[in-house]
Amino acid sequence: MSIEQLIKKIEPLDEKAMNLARRRQNQLTKPQGSLGRLESLSIQIAGITANASPQLDKKLALVMAGDHGVVEEGVSAYPQDVTAQMVANIIQGGAAVSVLAKQCGARVLVVDMGIKLDIKPDNNLLIKKIASGTGNIAHGPAMTREQAVEAIQTGAEIVSQEIENGMDVLATGEMGIGNTTPSAAIAAVLTNTIPEYVAGRGTGISDIGLQKKINAIRNAVIINNPDPKDGIDILSKIGGFEIAGLAGAIIATAAYRKPIIIDGFISTAAAMVAVTMAPQIREYIIASHKSAETGHEAMLDWLRLDPIFDLGMRLGEGSGAVLAFSVVEAACKILNEMATFEEAGVSTKSMV
Amino acid sequence: MSIEQLIKKIEPLDEKAMNLARRRQNQLTKPQGSLGRLESLSIQIAGITANASPQLDKKLALVMAGDHGVVEEGVSAYPQDVTAQMVANIIQGGAAVSVLAKQCGARVLVVDMGIKLDIKPDNNLLIKKIASGTGNIAHGPAMTREQAVEAIQTGAEIVSQEIENGMDVLATGEMGIGNTTPSAAIAAVLTNTIPEYVAGRGTGISDIGLQKKINAIRNAVIINNPDPKDGIDILSKIGGFEIAGLAGAIIATAAYRKPIIIDGFISTAAAMVAVTMAPQIREYIIASHKSAETGHEAMLDWLRLDPIFDLGMRLGEGSGAVLAFSVVEAACKILNEMATFEEAGVSTKSMV
Repeated sequence: MSIEQLIKKIEPLDEKAMNLARRRQNQLTKPQGSLGRLESLSIQIAGITANASPQLDKKLALVMAGDHGVVEEGVSAYPQDVTAQMVANIIQGGAAVSVLAKQCGARVLVVDMGIKLDIKPDNNLLIKKIASGTGNIAHGPAMTREQAVEAIQTGAEIVSQEIENGMDVLATGEMGIGNTTPSAAIAAVLTNTIPEYVAGRGTGISDIGLQKKINAIRNAVIINNPDPKDGIDILSKIGGFEIAGLAGAIIATAAYRKPIIIDGFISTAAAMVAVTMAPQIREYIIASHKSAETGHEAMLDWLRLDPIFDLGMRLGEGSGAVLAFSVVEAACKILNEMATFEEAGVSTKSMV
Repeated sequence: MSIEQLIKKIEPLDEKAMNLARRRQNQLTKPQGSLGRLESLSIQIAGITANASPQLDKKLALVMAGDHGVVEEGVSAYPQDVTAQMVANIIQGGAAVSVLAKQCGARVLVVDMGIKLDIKPDNNLLIKKIASGTGNIAHGPAMTREQAVEAIQTGAEIVSQEIENGMDVLATGEMGIGNTTPSAAIAAVLTNTIPEYVAGRGTGISDIGLQKKINAIRNAVIINNPDPKDGIDILSKIGGFEIAGLAGAIIATAAYRKPIIIDGFISTAAAMVAVTMAPQIREYIIASHKSAETGHEAMLDWLRLDPIFDLGMRLGEGSGAVLAFSVVEAACKILNEMATFEEAGVSTKSMV
């Protein structure tokens, strides 16, 4: 299905399922509303899935990987080869996202959307390389418009296939040395702010590195002048292959009525692009955590999303999103498995 | 072991294990510090357990239950029989804590510390009734000093037995209609504040109910005049059997070097009493969440504990503490299972 067709397919949340879920929450053996966010999450997921008893058994952590020409500007603390090295580490189970996914029974699927080096495919690694890294956005566009469309389409197709195979919920993740720079550029354009407010230290750059990063973001926005109303234009001019792939994955997940748990800074930039392309996607997104990375809060505010966690995390890979699987799953289990006052023979509230 | 002996047994966190854990966190394949709270939790748990690779396999949710004479004052929205009814619901698996514990593989153990009605014992229900509910604290003491000691000792013995059976981590929970009132009284005495600042709506009382509750707390403090330096005096005058039991459970868990995850308002009051009795316990406690109940934040501030979640929860039972099991376990798994840079062949940080 084309991106346009997927976007047309996205419907508002299902009111009937939400009302049924809300009514059931109010009959369960607890004071009404006393489970706070667990209750509202369960109602949201009922609306997303159009199912008043949603179950999130098959959990996927989708880690899109790509390299970035802008690292030439000295914006990252790690060498570019680390993208490929960390992809291997994720597949071998040694990365944070691997460990957290194993804990909650989620599958990790890594996609080479545009890594500079070539990696061998694997059961859990798809090679969908659009190109060997993006162009340096401080001097010109990241990619062509055609490449951006291809990357979005690729992300959408991967998720469509996963949904056919039974995926119930998506966590977005990424790996790409330098990718907080294009993400910050996207945030600057969409929130209409200066680079200083959305540029953080990423993996841990120095003051001088941070200044280079701010300059790179400023140049990227000035030179490329992306149209803030056109998500594809933003991605092609100042995006990344993994960011575009995630935007496509988010669009397809919403089209097929599954919840999307976004991770931190880069995933949120991808979500902002997806919402720019189709504003109705917003209701399908659950923000897992507030990253310690400068600017992330402003991005969540733009999306009007309230994060589940605020744990000072800033790793990426999907680590925060995967950590949130257990909370989101707990919300559904509360809805489905708790007894009602009637079932349990518990007296209801008296008049005090 | 007597309470005094257990308190003497509590040592500071193990610096050697913490240093080893800290060193390992800095070698794992992620920017240093980028997993935020997950890293600090893992280091704290290494210090608690004196083990640089702590594992939290056997998780216990201990739900202490008791009734409160102060409900005569009209301080609760639910009738007193609900304590016994909800205990049955927890054992049958229909309560929030039951559902959340099942999700993460924790065992729920309920203890009748002083329920008014008699309930049949069960595999997961111990009958340790000190009395059939406390006295009305608005008019006199909750219990005798001997009963308070007995309740603390009972909680400590139950946990000591559980630790002998392999318990790795404790979540505190409770059930007791009216028990936010004694908990608020404890908070008022220990934080030295007026009842209005620590009295909330509990299970959902009206404005008139809240005023009755504030009056009851004020009277309880004035009439009983507990010594804020004497935890046993506080418990006997304005406490509850389940609160005293939890205080004892917390003391024993710290004595045997296991982490304690506290739930919300009532569990935090019990933790405050335990810390009053033995200040070194504080480092063994992990606050699971900030409750929506008025006053809980001030209690956490008094304990100098930073909650993991802030999800608008205010149910009790141990629901928030059990929800936090997955985060605390994730912290340990990150420490134990992630690859180091060397193991994974990932390049370390360059100079930017």
